[in-house]
Amino acid sequence: MSTLDSLSRRAALAAGQPISELMRQALAHPELISLAAGFVDQATLPVEATRAAFDEVFHDPRWAQAALQYGTPAGHLPLREAVLAALVENDGAAIAGQHLSVEQVLVTAGSNELLHLLVDTLCDPGDIVLVPEPTYFVFLGMLRNLGVRAIGVTADEQGLVPEALDEELARLAGTGELARVKALYVVSYFDNPSSVTLSEERRGPVVETIKRHSRHGTIRIIEDAAYRELRYGGPNPPSMRSFDAEGDTVVLTETFSKSFSPGIRVGWGFLPRDLVEPLSDQKGNIDFGSPNLSQHVMAAVMDKGLLRPHVEKLRDNYRKKLAATLAACEEHLRPIPGVHWSPPRGGLYVWLTLPDEIATGPGGTLFEHAVEEGVLYVPGEYSYAGQPHEARTNTIRMSFGVQSVERIRRGVEGLTRAIRRTLEQ
Amino acid sequence: MSTLDSLSRRAALAAGQPISELMRQALAHPELISLAAGFVDQATLPVEATRAAFDEVFHDPRWAQAALQYGTPAGHLPLREAVLAALVENDGAAIAGQHLSVEQVLVTAGSNELLHLLVDTLCDPGDIVLVPEPTYFVFLGMLRNLGVRAIGVTADEQGLVPEALDEELARLAGTGELARVKALYVVSYFDNPSSVTLSEERRGPVVETIKRHSRHGTIRIIEDAAYRELRYGGPNPPSMRSFDAEGDTVVLTETFSKSFSPGIRVGWGFLPRDLVEPLSDQKGNIDFGSPNLSQHVMAAVMDKGLLRPHVEKLRDNYRKKLAATLAACEEHLRPIPGVHWSPPRGGLYVWLTLPDEIATGPGGTLFEHAVEEGVLYVPGEYSYAGQPHEARTNTIRMSFGVQSVERIRRGVEGLTRAIRRTLEQ
Repeated sequence: MSTLDSLSRRAALAAGQPISELMRQALAHPELISLAAGFVDQATLPVEATRAAFDEVFHDPRWAQAALQYGTPAGHLPLREAVLAALVENDGAAIAGQHLSVEQVLVTAGSNELLHLLVDTLCDPGDIVLVPEPTYFVFLGMLRNLGVRAIGVTADEQGLVPEALDEELARLAGTGELARVKALYVVSYFDNPSSVTLSEERRGPVVETIKRHSRHGTIRIIEDAAYRELRYGGPNPPSMRSFDAEGDTVVLTETFSKSFSPGIRVGWGFLPRDLVEPLSDQKGNIDFGSPNLSQHVMAAVMDKGLLRPHVEKLRDNYRKKLAATLAACEEHLRPIPGVHWSPPRGGLYVWLTLPDEIATGPGGTLFEHAVEEGVLYVPGEYSYAGQPHEARTNTIRMSFGVQSVERIRRGVEGLTRAIRRTLEQ
Repeated sequence: MSTLDSLSRRAALAAGQPISELMRQALAHPELISLAAGFVDQATLPVEATRAAFDEVFHDPRWAQAALQYGTPAGHLPLREAVLAALVENDGAAIAGQHLSVEQVLVTAGSNELLHLLVDTLCDPGDIVLVPEPTYFVFLGMLRNLGVRAIGVTADEQGLVPEALDEELARLAGTGELARVKALYVVSYFDNPSSVTLSEERRGPVVETIKRHSRHGTIRIIEDAAYRELRYGGPNPPSMRSFDAEGDTVVLTETFSKSFSPGIRVGWGFLPRDLVEPLSDQKGNIDFGSPNLSQHVMAAVMDKGLLRPHVEKLRDNYRKKLAATLAACEEHLRPIPGVHWSPPRGGLYVWLTLPDEIATGPGGTLFEHAVEEGVLYVPGEYSYAGQPHEARTNTIRMSFGVQSVERIRRGVEGLTRAIRRTLEQ
């Protein structure tokens, strides 16, 4: 009997996630230029701001002791107030007049913990979560781990298509499966992997479509706004949450992992009122409270006004990298017929579509050639639910956050050589 | 349809945990002397040591940036090496010669995360975990949340009784349920709530008994050593892990929450080899890596030799509080016939047994009288599995970690008045 046979069903489902495979590849090939890792640029991480915030907390021994003590499952109140104020400011007129209480803010150890907590709380094994095609592959892995079925909905360059969502929900009603649909997941700004932002015009219709098909408010929208602050140009549409006037449908999740530091590990959510207690109860069982020291430091970062200037620095840095990535794509990839991408205006990714005959998957020729040419990428097929439509096998996610401008250029050159070699075979 | 009906089975099972109820009571009665909270003494929290470790990390901008970046699911390597070295030193001759690899060390956000991860990985709903009577009630709540059955095994003043464990396993084999037994959970030093340390003589027999009944190594021992460092006198027996020469049975879990700071939120486990990959995979899905900044700071605390002196200060502080608690018990409680306790030599708790006719539960007369007399305690019944034996309803967990010596004294006086009033009714 192998160990896996003796473990839980969840443990069996946790094995073999793409993220583990990608990490193993990166470790096995440290010499390669990784356009795969979705990490933030280490050189931009806020050493001085963190130090200043830490000093603020530790200047007062009583405050420091409070930060070193257990916190509550809901999180540090001043931090919850600060993130709520930031949401209200960010959404402006679109959310003004809605009654938003700090009681509805839940702090977690990164937004990953919150996403897991949400799915675990909303879904039993066999339930359904709708996702755009493509979507965040780590989230798809989490759904698989929890035994939850992901079903894809068509998205285009303006994001999720409301009519396609409507049709899919009608189809599921027809097959008798509508009651198993518990959520729609959307990365609403600069999606991972496609970098698409759901257009402002579609936000209302998407929320309305879910409400219309939801019996007794049982279908929620999980709005993952992790990349909202990584905007290098273009508009900042109000959150999907702001279109949920009743406040009973959209769960907004955010994180400081992209806008400040992933190592400090602070995320947060704004919840419908009826989910506050169930999520807090579930969270208490799992983590007995998120790291309190990190929360106090983040509260001091916000209180001292250190977040906004840091975000501006980040934007300047990533804007240059994005420009370098797009310039390299124009120069090297544009001449190849059948290669397409949409220039993003934020986020950390460029989503490439290759000629249909190229399979980008981990066992395929292109991946092998890319490694030989010194480049790692994320195969796009990881980002598809695989039902009701098959995964597209000719796509690639390229990350531009981690590498220098020079290495991005060399990476795109290497990838281009790999594509040409694959086409020539 | 209420919200709870629309949520997952797990969410329904997460509601109404004793810990939530206790927190609500504490918030509702802030004026009371709480002998309920199992927190550490806020005044002892290591402000200077944390600051020195933080400065060490942030003195080097590259180190600081590494700490602010994502970590790996397994955790920061220097920290894993340091905790492994501490284990080897602590267990001395008992563990010398066993091959222990740093690959087997997993860092988590507190040991609560690790306990949850372990049960989630080992058990499906309906599976069984054996626990001593009494045991850590938060762990019992976690089992309930995961749909796992807790079954109690008799313990006495030397801890779990190996013969009782043997009998229970034989009984479960007889009823055909042995295959559902996935683990035995033991707080092996200064148990929460009983403060009993499993005696050295029993450690080998307990490990041997589990191995004998385990088919193909499918029953594990979860050794929770959270309180090992809070030793104010007496011996420091080697870990149960050290009695597992094959290294395939005992999962050792530890934490810095008691010995250093709960707010920094770093725990760790030493795993059997075959559990390393499944636990890492599962962990990656849930948290995408524990807080990295905290791990770097804790590694610097250990590297700079700041942990041992802090533990010595803690011991001096809690030794005095324990002495005050026991002195107050002798003075006030000893004269009441039928009240018993065993003086502990470590930990944070004194476990009281009252006359059989007194029910200590939250709806009962004693609890009400105690609140009137200005005292909160943890009803002992929360700490029993309830099967195969019924919970004992005449026990109390008193914590002495949080309150001052003066308030401990007043708390015990108040509790004594409440007991006398209850007996006189």
